[in-house]
Amino acid sequence: MPPGPLPTAGSAGDILQLVRDGQAATRNEVMEVTGLSRSTVMSRIAALLGAGLLTETPEAGRSSGGRPPATLAFNERAGVVLAGDLGAGHGRLAVFDLGGVTLVEREEAVRIADGPDPVLQWVGDTFDALLAAAGCKPRDVLAVGLDVPGPVDVSAGCPVSPPIMPGWDGHPVVDALSGRFDCPAFLERDVNAMAIGEHRRHWPDLPNMVFVKVATGIGAGVIADGALLRGNHGQAGDIGHIRAINESDVLCTCGNHGCVGAVASGKAIVRELRGQGLDVSTSADVVALVRAGHAGATHHVRESGRLLGAALAVVVSVVAPTAIIIGGGLAEASEPLLAGIRESVYQRSSPLATGELRILTSRLGARAGVIGAATIAIENALSPASIDALVARRAVAA
Amino acid sequence: MPPGPLPTAGSAGDILQLVRDGQAATRNEVMEVTGLSRSTVMSRIAALLGAGLLTETPEAGRSSGGRPPATLAFNERAGVVLAGDLGAGHGRLAVFDLGGVTLVEREEAVRIADGPDPVLQWVGDTFDALLAAAGCKPRDVLAVGLDVPGPVDVSAGCPVSPPIMPGWDGHPVVDALSGRFDCPAFLERDVNAMAIGEHRRHWPDLPNMVFVKVATGIGAGVIADGALLRGNHGQAGDIGHIRAINESDVLCTCGNHGCVGAVASGKAIVRELRGQGLDVSTSADVVALVRAGHAGATHHVRESGRLLGAALAVVVSVVAPTAIIIGGGLAEASEPLLAGIRESVYQRSSPLATGELRILTSRLGARAGVIGAATIAIENALSPASIDALVARRAVAA
Repeated sequence: MPPGPLPTAGSAGDILQLVRDGQAATRNEVMEVTGLSRSTVMSRIAALLGAGLLTETPEAGRSSGGRPPATLAFNERAGVVLAGDLGAGHGRLAVFDLGGVTLVEREEAVRIADGPDPVLQWVGDTFDALLAAAGCKPRDVLAVGLDVPGPVDVSAGCPVSPPIMPGWDGHPVVDALSGRFDCPAFLERDVNAMAIGEHRRHWPDLPNMVFVKVATGIGAGVIADGALLRGNHGQAGDIGHIRAINESDVLCTCGNHGCVGAVASGKAIVRELRGQGLDVSTSADVVALVRAGHAGATHHVRESGRLLGAALAVVVSVVAPTAIIIGGGLAEASEPLLAGIRESVYQRSSPLATGELRILTSRLGARAGVIGAATIAIENALSPASIDALVARRAVAA
Repeated sequence: MPPGPLPTAGSAGDILQLVRDGQAATRNEVMEVTGLSRSTVMSRIAALLGAGLLTETPEAGRSSGGRPPATLAFNERAGVVLAGDLGAGHGRLAVFDLGGVTLVEREEAVRIADGPDPVLQWVGDTFDALLAAAGCKPRDVLAVGLDVPGPVDVSAGCPVSPPIMPGWDGHPVVDALSGRFDCPAFLERDVNAMAIGEHRRHWPDLPNMVFVKVATGIGAGVIADGALLRGNHGQAGDIGHIRAINESDVLCTCGNHGCVGAVASGKAIVRELRGQGLDVSTSADVVALVRAGHAGATHHVRESGRLLGAALAVVVSVVAPTAIIIGGGLAEASEPLLAGIRESVYQRSSPLATGELRILTSRLGARAGVIGAATIAIENALSPASIDALVARRAVAA
């Protein structure tokens, strides 16, 4: 006896997913796709409408008798997420709607090295102010996403031995945010958030992509088969300690010599150029010199690109991406940097590995992190389980 | 209004999965776990019993009146899979039951370079003979898994530009096997099959693991978050072309100099030792010399381990595994090889990356590939969709 049709999961959250994916736009289509009974579909959709997550529009122009079927649509303004990107010396915070549209955003100078208490206080207070500015109430917040410039234990929700974040090791960041905003919170390593942001916005069809941040330091976020590659303790993509020069006297924070993050980063170029008597102190200064046509700065950026490219050739061998996206402050000096990176990657990789490989600069630029953090928060807020919980909560509140 | 309980998928295949996972062992437990109606559960289980996929045993010692509940169990002998591991110069073929037990196995000298026609003819004929030896009929075969020593496009089911497999580029291997045995077939790169075999048998609880094959050449299969990392065209883990020596005069098949596969593989050690007048021609000869205490051979194996370890330090940075498993013919000379690998990996990686990292030799040895190919076939044959199709087919045949 052959089995009957496969019943599919059919909670309110599953139904919202079908509508968002464009698989069903009417109650009848939901019944057809899911195989659920009419009464179940009716009550679940009523719950989604009641919670504000769906809207319905009577379909015009149908006059075959009876009530025309209403077209269902996801209401992207049914809630908001808070998203933040913390760097070594800045913080960028924003409120996004559930469709990923930025409602309000603010960037300020913030020193991550001041430790978690003052920084998280600033994050919380600024989110409150942004919510007010966006005309939202605290109960509209469905999730919070935050990224930080260091390794993160995603399941524990805290930084793990972050080298440039004194005082943050093991600090319960997720618990703090989740408690303050009474909703789920997510913490990510900055390059992972950037990789997700760039991937979802501009490269959703590429399953394998590497995002490389070249700024004061160097790190990477790897998208494998559409998802973040995390590795043990979220350490995957920590490419800054790949040895770029065998006989190097440049000491890295890890205690080894010649790490790519120590010899090819913005910090390294600044050091070289200062050694030549130039007045530079940040990656932005280096970028300004390159844009002004300074040959020495351009040379060093290109040479950094070559060293980084040698490390990336190895990354290409290991994960076989079809795109490498270069972001971070130094990516603003994109021409010599990309020229150097491409030179090494194409020289050192096998033809099969680089046949379809693109090496490009980030399209999101300085907003990659905050957009990625928002994307992570939205994807979690809209998961069927989260939606089911939200529907239940709003039903009780109503 | 809060949503009702989440309905779960409940096809025959889903129910078999619950029984295999130990989540349900009686009809009542299946009803409780799935929320399906009694009549649906009864008919699906009857179909699974009819197809021979479940067995039932009346539970003894229960005398509370009424018929005691029968205990359901997965019947691992309800079918078999065919699995094959093809190397450069050998083929190992076997028949496995659905529990992964080897029923019969054969290894022969086969030259992959002879091309797909004679090799696949041999594979098909040998599978026929093995099936007969195991007392199985062709209709018992639920899936075929085969691995080959080169890159594979898994979705197309064919090798892609495999360097040591002349004539195989784009050959429809999966179609050939699937047609001959009238069931789904799966083709994998050898190191990927080995990684899956070693992972599922011995390290199922480690989400992140790298399997490295050190034989005539060098390659790796990467398990990330429990699944194979494939990358573009299945090229992920192709670590043989990572540059191990910057100023090297050793030419690799890829056209570059100093690739780790050219300077640290069995082939490289054989070349070195022959240069010293020793009579060696295979990795096995090298292993024999090491076991006999030959200092020169031991030195070269250790040095190869160091070079490979430098490349693996980069792999550690990129994917952050908790175990690196060394397999392939040269792994038989495990002590100096592992000593060299560990020396480089621990020297060149950041402390956080290696804090929990184990570097060990393969437990499956020469059987890793065939066990991995069988595992891939079994996991596919037992997927709920495959089981649903099988139940339908057997119902029609009955």
